[in-house]
Amino acid sequence: MSLLVCVSRRDNTKLLEELRAQLPGVDIFEWPHCPDLTQVEFVLAWNAPDELWAQLPNLQVVQSFGAGVDGIAQHLLPEHVQITRIVDEHLTNDMAEYVLTHILAYKLRLKQYFLQQQQGIWKPKRAHAGSHVGIMGLGELGRAVAGRLTDNNFTVSGWSASPKSFAEIDTYFGKEQLASFLGNLDYLVCLLPLTPSTKGILNKSLFSQLPSHCVLINVARGQHVIASDLIWALDNNELAAACLDVFTNEPLDDEHPFWLHPNITVTPHCAALTSVATACEQIAHNYLSLMNNQSLANTIDRAKGY
Amino acid sequence: MSLLVCVSRRDNTKLLEELRAQLPGVDIFEWPHCPDLTQVEFVLAWNAPDELWAQLPNLQVVQSFGAGVDGIAQHLLPEHVQITRIVDEHLTNDMAEYVLTHILAYKLRLKQYFLQQQQGIWKPKRAHAGSHVGIMGLGELGRAVAGRLTDNNFTVSGWSASPKSFAEIDTYFGKEQLASFLGNLDYLVCLLPLTPSTKGILNKSLFSQLPSHCVLINVARGQHVIASDLIWALDNNELAAACLDVFTNEPLDDEHPFWLHPNITVTPHCAALTSVATACEQIAHNYLSLMNNQSLANTIDRAKGY
Repeated sequence: MSLLVCVSRRDNTKLLEELRAQLPGVDIFEWPHCPDLTQVEFVLAWNAPDELWAQLPNLQVVQSFGAGVDGIAQHLLPEHVQITRIVDEHLTNDMAEYVLTHILAYKLRLKQYFLQQQQGIWKPKRAHAGSHVGIMGLGELGRAVAGRLTDNNFTVSGWSASPKSFAEIDTYFGKEQLASFLGNLDYLVCLLPLTPSTKGILNKSLFSQLPSHCVLINVARGQHVIASDLIWALDNNELAAACLDVFTNEPLDDEHPFWLHPNITVTPHCAALTSVATACEQIAHNYLSLMNNQSLANTIDRAKGY
Repeated sequence: MSLLVCVSRRDNTKLLEELRAQLPGVDIFEWPHCPDLTQVEFVLAWNAPDELWAQLPNLQVVQSFGAGVDGIAQHLLPEHVQITRIVDEHLTNDMAEYVLTHILAYKLRLKQYFLQQQQGIWKPKRAHAGSHVGIMGLGELGRAVAGRLTDNNFTVSGWSASPKSFAEIDTYFGKEQLASFLGNLDYLVCLLPLTPSTKGILNKSLFSQLPSHCVLINVARGQHVIASDLIWALDNNELAAACLDVFTNEPLDDEHPFWLHPNITVTPHCAALTSVATACEQIAHNYLSLMNNQSLANTIDRAKGY
């Protein structure tokens, strides 16, 4: 019985150190350096290669090293394998703060004034007036963002695949209600899970249903956005601006048109950085639960895929 | 009996239109076009020339066109003249939002990421950790800013000239307690009134008492800051950054070193723009109160000067 860490494109020194401290005596290996893959029952994964899974006959649990599980090729895993993710109160707070900050920054024209400062231009303008924010995706993160925004005098509407209802926000669901949800928003925040039905959901058709002064904030996954449609929408006054923290390829390609587009703000996937300490506590807890035949925390619904 | 508008360096077309609509039948003149200065009992003033006051023998009220009254040469006015100012809930909210936004923007490194975007650099970093904000000046605006910040998980301390106490924030007062107030702040917000004893209060000695990672936000008056001391503090690691909305000369001089300093954010006195509609309501209310011998709203204490 061993724990395999397969977290790609990242220096994992601190992570392994912390995991070993939390799980003394447990065999912890870092892919591809593992003496016996048949002993592996628990994998900590992020961007793991698809060919890994067929080599682990005794796999019981895949623990994602993040809030999302879209980097795990679920169709390659036997049905009995449990998939869990990190639910970190800090991640939730950080995400809410990122969204609030970037909405306020647009409202108060920070980028515009910063560009004017670079050119020595003094030109006061009133803040942007609108304060209606729509949130797509009403899971842990979506609800936390909604709460933080209503606390700061924004009006919030929410949209999700299946019906949900919460105090203080109007909710919409399904494809039929998408147009009514989008119709009078000042800001649209995407916090959807990435699934076959949400991939590419931020496209020409959706942008056309938003008011032209609306601002998009994508903090979910790069694959939610059709990049060329977003640029089309910005260049054709279907959308005022976009703030993007996530991209199909990360780091964002050097030559990508997002970098220099005047109406796009690029941040380097920093909205909610997993804290190694908190993550390791949850990973260790789940590993020990598996050992003791107890139920795991933060498992996903394999049928839904999130 | 007439009302004189002396609001300099500004297009007052809309202001006069709105005032005339709110006060039908009242003689309203715009300086220097006034047929008989002896008839003037009420002046709406902003950057009024000092020589005006001696020409108004029947002056009863000077209404400032803003939240501050420092543009009015109080020592030139007879003691019986009442001075009033605009207290606008919108101004208060706008100020709180400006301070919250710029603190969050620094915490989440918006300017740093924006500069990196301009250069195509992908470099995620954790947000700045500190969340202790000190507010100098605990009037209407200072208290509103404190409330907005505590609502957003910041710890707030306050300092004022005379002792004040409020729930949820530690308060300090007077010169003796200034050092303890400053000692462990992550952000310092100046919202003091401008008086002879607060002019130049943001100087070398004060900056030296702040932690070196502290960020200054000045939304009070440019004259609170000794400009050369601020640049010295930033260049000598006594202070991490400054966000300035107010300046001794506005617009800020073309050649001023603030424009291009890498650790200074300049905004064009836009934190709280007086709304003409709200201001005119208050001005009309005060004018009618004077006519009817009723007490005026938002008068200052002439002895204190604010």
